[in-house]
Amino acid sequence: MSKNLVRPKSISGFAEYLPAEQRAAQQMQDQIRRQFELYGFTPIETPAVERLEVLLAKGGDTDKEMFLLQRLDPEAESDAKLGLHYDLTVPFARYVAQHFGQLIFPFKRYQMQPCWRGERPQDGRFRQFMQCDIDVVALDKLALSFDSEIPLVAWEVLRKLDIGDFDFRISNRKITEGYLQGLGLGTTTPLSVVTRWLDKLEKIGPDKVKEQLRELGVEQPEKALALAQIQTRDLSFADKVRALGVEHPTLTQGLDELTQVMERLFSEHQQGFLVDLSVTRGLDYYTGSVYEIRWNEHPGLGSIGAGGRYDDLAGNYTSHHLPGVGLSLGFTRIFSKLKQTLPPPTPTQVLVTWLEPEATKSRLLAAQLRAKGIKTESYHEPAKLNKQLQYANRKQIPYVLFEADMEMKDLKTGLQTAVDLATWQPD
Amino acid sequence: MSKNLVRPKSISGFAEYLPAEQRAAQQMQDQIRRQFELYGFTPIETPAVERLEVLLAKGGDTDKEMFLLQRLDPEAESDAKLGLHYDLTVPFARYVAQHFGQLIFPFKRYQMQPCWRGERPQDGRFRQFMQCDIDVVALDKLALSFDSEIPLVAWEVLRKLDIGDFDFRISNRKITEGYLQGLGLGTTTPLSVVTRWLDKLEKIGPDKVKEQLRELGVEQPEKALALAQIQTRDLSFADKVRALGVEHPTLTQGLDELTQVMERLFSEHQQGFLVDLSVTRGLDYYTGSVYEIRWNEHPGLGSIGAGGRYDDLAGNYTSHHLPGVGLSLGFTRIFSKLKQTLPPPTPTQVLVTWLEPEATKSRLLAAQLRAKGIKTESYHEPAKLNKQLQYANRKQIPYVLFEADMEMKDLKTGLQTAVDLATWQPD
Repeated sequence: MSKNLVRPKSISGFAEYLPAEQRAAQQMQDQIRRQFELYGFTPIETPAVERLEVLLAKGGDTDKEMFLLQRLDPEAESDAKLGLHYDLTVPFARYVAQHFGQLIFPFKRYQMQPCWRGERPQDGRFRQFMQCDIDVVALDKLALSFDSEIPLVAWEVLRKLDIGDFDFRISNRKITEGYLQGLGLGTTTPLSVVTRWLDKLEKIGPDKVKEQLRELGVEQPEKALALAQIQTRDLSFADKVRALGVEHPTLTQGLDELTQVMERLFSEHQQGFLVDLSVTRGLDYYTGSVYEIRWNEHPGLGSIGAGGRYDDLAGNYTSHHLPGVGLSLGFTRIFSKLKQTLPPPTPTQVLVTWLEPEATKSRLLAAQLRAKGIKTESYHEPAKLNKQLQYANRKQIPYVLFEADMEMKDLKTGLQTAVDLATWQPD
Repeated sequence: MSKNLVRPKSISGFAEYLPAEQRAAQQMQDQIRRQFELYGFTPIETPAVERLEVLLAKGGDTDKEMFLLQRLDPEAESDAKLGLHYDLTVPFARYVAQHFGQLIFPFKRYQMQPCWRGERPQDGRFRQFMQCDIDVVALDKLALSFDSEIPLVAWEVLRKLDIGDFDFRISNRKITEGYLQGLGLGTTTPLSVVTRWLDKLEKIGPDKVKEQLRELGVEQPEKALALAQIQTRDLSFADKVRALGVEHPTLTQGLDELTQVMERLFSEHQQGFLVDLSVTRGLDYYTGSVYEIRWNEHPGLGSIGAGGRYDDLAGNYTSHHLPGVGLSLGFTRIFSKLKQTLPPPTPTQVLVTWLEPEATKSRLLAAQLRAKGIKTESYHEPAKLNKQLQYANRKQIPYVLFEADMEMKDLKTGLQTAVDLATWQPD
């Protein structure tokens, strides 16, 4: 009977993986999870949807990219307006505000979930993408030591994932803001407008930035630019800033904080960390440390991780004062570019043949291996040996156990030897 | 500055867990994953959304419960109509059809993802719920051994999760259909209408079923009912069916299949499996084995897992003939009722104090423990011992390492002893 087929195809911006890729993704996610937990971050998950008023409370430019839910059934009772979350920060803020009384502060959480944005799909940008977030929030006052712990954890994750060379750029918003105020800026033009241009330094170059600042009425644009051009892989950034001769208490505080943070980071890891005073992470809610990770092999990809310290996480949802610091790694973006040797398309480590008339022996041996934690398939029907070996080969199953004569074949080396299952272990 | 707060609250039908509960859920999910992989099932994940035509291809009564996506921005380019998946079978069918050439058959996959349905939330029913699915699909012909492997894996998962007493009810659609055809039914009234009533036997009782069958024009309703009332915890079901004196080749085949399946299941596990010939799993696409799991402590919860064999997985999306057998466990439903001792609200195993003026020693010790895979926090600021101990106690961190004198305190026993970190292991 012929019928109309719906042609299956991918949806632009929604990644989907073949079994071997999915296993690689799963292994990476397990590694990230393990690393987060090594530092005592605890997992939370929030529903994929939030009420629209929660999603919109923050304001900003993500609104237009939001996906709302609608019922197919036009007669469905009208629900509260719901939308898919576009990041994990908003759901986390709502979560902390809602469960405030049942959380223990400082609260260290990680969250690894897909997010959705209706933006135009392009290289490294997806409409569904998994973010891996870590944050620490405290009540009223948050220790500065977390400002170095957060980048440390993220750095170690990226090293474990073996992504190659990356720059973990760090700055402190107090430096930028104090410096610009010391220059007398911020009275006629809001500081955030100035910092937004400084943030674009790498993208559009110093000349264009200077021009823009001049248009804003900044009298000494080269002076503002000089700060943003400071990049060091050691603690010398503080002297370089001081040499510019600008003074302001906020600047002093920012330099002091960044020095403490970088002291620890440079002492733990020599490579990868970079003080870059052009980093401001446009978002207005960052008030101290700011982080931005670039993957040097893929400069066009944008940042693969970003974050910072904010003065109040959940000010839209609670009157408790909850300062925090956090960072978000773009898993889908990283995975989309990661070159790696893929694992086999199955977790199976041993295939037990079914060569005898009855399956009983094959199944018993398989159960014996599983009891030892070894992932095992018992071949699903009595079939010619060649067919069973071909199945193992195609699925890249490393070992085949011949149940009739109790010999184990290593498909990589081709060696076949008698085994004692009580002691045998796969490589 | 006072401002308008958005009151954070739960959305009906969308479960969210506190940290300790979330850790319990995570541990359960890891256990399920491990058990699936022990049998060689490989993970896949599909996007949360599918094109509407894919979701609607199956037809049926889930349509009205579907959530569609809509962009908040009214000027957004019009996308293909997308909807959230309401189960994992439809996305799996689309996946297999789409990636057909790159999969190796028999293809054994598991998939653990949330699904969304706009149905009315009630006890055990959620609008977002996680399903844990396993399926095997083959090209053209699927070995019967998988019909026993699937319930075996699910049975072992439920035992590992320690959910208590459950009934794993199994039947075979060929028995029901062959028997009813042997009774001369299926010519004027479709068999599926008759089986739908038999399926309700437990819910509405034999008298109501008989009445309904009589209304449908079934001449010997008690004869149809007699089949559905057969329940055995051994292989005697076949004789009981034969004793009813109805004959049909499909019935014979069904009895033969179910006997083979149950022979293996009863031989591996004495408890929990139950032949119940009233089980038909209304859905029309099941053509052989059918499964339905009831949690005896929670009879009102409905089934906590269900599945069966289908003749063609992806007939809506490809002309390849892909028979399969699978089962879906309702994770969210099970978790909502599971009584268990919750783990601590943090994965941290050791808290290293910060009592000396500098954090250096505390951090070095923490790093040393982490290098051994022990989840460790170094306290985040120099503080009074009492405050640090209180933090450990509240978070139920089992051990505290005093960095100044290298003693480890077991907070459960209160014992404090000198430790050598090179050899120390948490319980």
